[in-house]
Amino acid sequence: MIIDPATIAQKYINEVCKEITRKELNINILGLIATKDKPSISYAKATQKRFADAGINYDLQRIERLDLEKAIDEANKNPTIHGIFIYFPVFNNQQDDYLRNQVDYHKDIEAGSLYWTRKLYTNDRLAGRDSIHKALLPCTPLAVVKLLTEIGRYDGHHKPLEHKKVTIFNRSEVIGRPLAVMMSNDGAEVYSFDVNGPLLFENARAYETKITRAEALKESQIVITGVPNSDFTLIKSEEISDGTICVNFSSLNNFADDITTKADTFVPRIGPMTVAMCMRNTLRIYQNYQEQTNV
Amino acid sequence: MIIDPATIAQKYINEVCKEITRKELNINILGLIATKDKPSISYAKATQKRFADAGINYDLQRIERLDLEKAIDEANKNPTIHGIFIYFPVFNNQQDDYLRNQVDYHKDIEAGSLYWTRKLYTNDRLAGRDSIHKALLPCTPLAVVKLLTEIGRYDGHHKPLEHKKVTIFNRSEVIGRPLAVMMSNDGAEVYSFDVNGPLLFENARAYETKITRAEALKESQIVITGVPNSDFTLIKSEEISDGTICVNFSSLNNFADDITTKADTFVPRIGPMTVAMCMRNTLRIYQNYQEQTNV
Repeated sequence: MIIDPATIAQKYINEVCKEITRKELNINILGLIATKDKPSISYAKATQKRFADAGINYDLQRIERLDLEKAIDEANKNPTIHGIFIYFPVFNNQQDDYLRNQVDYHKDIEAGSLYWTRKLYTNDRLAGRDSIHKALLPCTPLAVVKLLTEIGRYDGHHKPLEHKKVTIFNRSEVIGRPLAVMMSNDGAEVYSFDVNGPLLFENARAYETKITRAEALKESQIVITGVPNSDFTLIKSEEISDGTICVNFSSLNNFADDITTKADTFVPRIGPMTVAMCMRNTLRIYQNYQEQTNV
Repeated sequence: MIIDPATIAQKYINEVCKEITRKELNINILGLIATKDKPSISYAKATQKRFADAGINYDLQRIERLDLEKAIDEANKNPTIHGIFIYFPVFNNQQDDYLRNQVDYHKDIEAGSLYWTRKLYTNDRLAGRDSIHKALLPCTPLAVVKLLTEIGRYDGHHKPLEHKKVTIFNRSEVIGRPLAVMMSNDGAEVYSFDVNGPLLFENARAYETKITRAEALKESQIVITGVPNSDFTLIKSEEISDGTICVNFSSLNNFADDITTKADTFVPRIGPMTVAMCMRNTLRIYQNYQEQTNV
């Protein structure tokens, strides 16, 4: 079965939309895109439309990459802007991490900055020291977890992934590591691979392991990939076990075409769910930091 | 002329030592090394000795890489530890940036975290909002600038590098970009190269440029390299102009052996100056955040 997440994403978008309508919220998001790459611009316009459809004012601005730092600074200071969305990659190096962390965490609807990932790693569930509000989770890892929940692969128990093994290819600080921490926190043994080799995550902690790709794939009930590199050796059906759930969140498909002959479920992209989670974070950010709370 | 920075570094170390002795300061630094690489361990032990010689208590601890996050957290909270030094690379990916930024900025003697580089980029010279104390500068860029000053290549004027052109190969957030910002702030036109191409820095701002490596090298009076990659095409004497100052801060030498036939001055390494600047930052951190101030 091949699952496209757009339908599932719509459910979450509808929930956000309902809440915004009910409370008559007036939320303003600034989207900043610095690339001239046409598919990226199309994607940005599609995002804008999705936000607008949900009742969120989404101002998409095209900008030169070298003006981005100043624009983020101004948006941070502008009280009428409640959230900021940056389209990455921009410089495709460490400077992108600089920009990601330049966004004020009060406005970081992607929750990709160190402020939010550190809260996840340290299991700090509150949005601020004196807050009753919940911390944000980074959009794409949250999108993967919610998608697996929706297709029934996350049970409602205390440890929904207990006795499950998961393999993730990608250990970036924005997606792969937070996702490994989240899934291991939910009970799974997670084998996390990147170019530097594997790590094992259990109960939100990392351990050294010498497991090979072949062993990890054979043992796993869930395989998740996010390698935006054409050198990556595609995962073939003969590498996985029967009944595996395969999820690809890379811009390139990291699975071979024959994967559907053996996988129980194949999710070729996660994008629409990421956008939905971003809207969910938008609402939470607004409720955490803008709405008056009566405690 | 080939200049080894060890002698110049000693001058700065002596100044730090004098101040520590005069005020009878009792400063404790924790050094954490996670690698088993023997040259790195030797380097760490040498650093430890330098700090100890200057009168700074330097506790060097070997640690498993997966225990580093916890150790940094504990050191951040430990009031008897005044500064933390991490030997990188550890994971050799984005997680190293996570760790670098996990160090509390009050204890970040390398000044490699976003807190300090952001202050540099935004020209914020104060250590804290309500502080009379000066902000820290990242160790290696500061080491390069101080070295050039000592060899008479930075005049004492308001804009000591006015009418000078500089080429830097490396635009990392820890060394290359802060260095380009600092030198352009001091009046130079700085051509900054990395794998993504060149940028021009003027008055601490970046601009797009189409300049080639050949053009940039021919025009520059100062050429600085920091590319830890053996694929980098070494800079040959025929590429530079007469009288150029060449500085290499990479662990690999990025200049061809014949560079000394044309360069006015060649500095093959910067390490000892970096350690000296780290001690200077140690003293400043202690004075900023530990000493009682009478304003």
